[in-house]
Amino acid sequence: MRVMGVDPGLTRCGLSMVQGGRGRTVTALDVDVVRTPPELDLANRLLLVADAAERWMDTHRPEAVAVERVFAQHNVRTAMATAQAGGVIALAAARRGIPVAFHTPSEVKAAVTGNGAADKAQVTAMVTRILGLQVAPKPADAADALALAICHCWRAPLLDRMAKAEQAAAEAQRKYKARLAEQRKAVRP
Amino acid sequence: MRVMGVDPGLTRCGLSMVQGGRGRTVTALDVDVVRTPPELDLANRLLLVADAAERWMDTHRPEAVAVERVFAQHNVRTAMATAQAGGVIALAAARRGIPVAFHTPSEVKAAVTGNGAADKAQVTAMVTRILGLQVAPKPADAADALALAICHCWRAPLLDRMAKAEQAAAEAQRKYKARLAEQRKAVRP
Repeated sequence: MRVMGVDPGLTRCGLSMVQGGRGRTVTALDVDVVRTPPELDLANRLLLVADAAERWMDTHRPEAVAVERVFAQHNVRTAMATAQAGGVIALAAARRGIPVAFHTPSEVKAAVTGNGAADKAQVTAMVTRILGLQVAPKPADAADALALAICHCWRAPLLDRMAKAEQAAAEAQRKYKARLAEQRKAVRP
Repeated sequence: MRVMGVDPGLTRCGLSMVQGGRGRTVTALDVDVVRTPPELDLANRLLLVADAAERWMDTHRPEAVAVERVFAQHNVRTAMATAQAGGVIALAAARRGIPVAFHTPSEVKAAVTGNGAADKAQVTAMVTRILGLQVAPKPADAADALALAICHCWRAPLLDRMAKAEQAAAEAQRKYKARLAEQRKAVRP
């Protein structure tokens, strides 16, 4: 499974492409950080980020895109810009029919380091080790984008099974309700 | 000046098209509310909103797009989704070379009602009166989208003059500094 990891942002947007193999085998195919000039207006900064992400999708043809889910940050303005950068990338994936998954920072940290509250250095160290890289990825946004893709490779089968189980449960409940309604009709025709 | 007003959202996204004329004359050309099903995933909901906004831009060819600037809301998740909906619409405008302006809710309320803390009923009443509508626009998202476009029609000349004044001031300062540097060189060659 080929997964594109996205650590969204306007100042720095981390992009990664990871190939997941059997078991926990993962290989890094590419990683980069897109920067947009702060003096540019918001709409055109979003355009630069979207263009870069679309080039990546069209070049690497990922089967899934994993984006970091943004929560409240210290700076509301930054949080909104980050959400918007993630939004335009999710849109680009949807236009191509590529499924998009959002993972929270603590889900990503827990998947990669085993600790949902790990710091940036720990995440970078584990990403470097897991992918067998010669050099630690820099800046932190690059490491985060790789961590997101790894997290998705490992969580995807689980999320898939959960979704299927939920679907099966909903179907069973629907059938049960239909049978109940029929029995009621039989009692009071 | 033809302005597209956007009250961004995923559950309901207000879209409006307003033609600004001489002075404070404004005419409503169109207004609608786009809804996306909550059971759909985020990326595909963003796609529905983006598609609708792009159809509007290609049909009405606005000269500017005015989007509500999102601030912190009670619900972080809603605020993020709202920011993302605004982001994909700003992106669609940037792709078409249409300038995008963001106005805060209080700027919009102040422009339309004279009171930055006006409630929804006051905004709707003033929008109805300003545009000379027979019926008040409903739901509130439609009225808000119209208010945003009106606000932009009225604020745009002012913002334009301010940007030009700032540019002129920057240019004057640049020239002054250049002259100063020349004089210094003349003193200490």
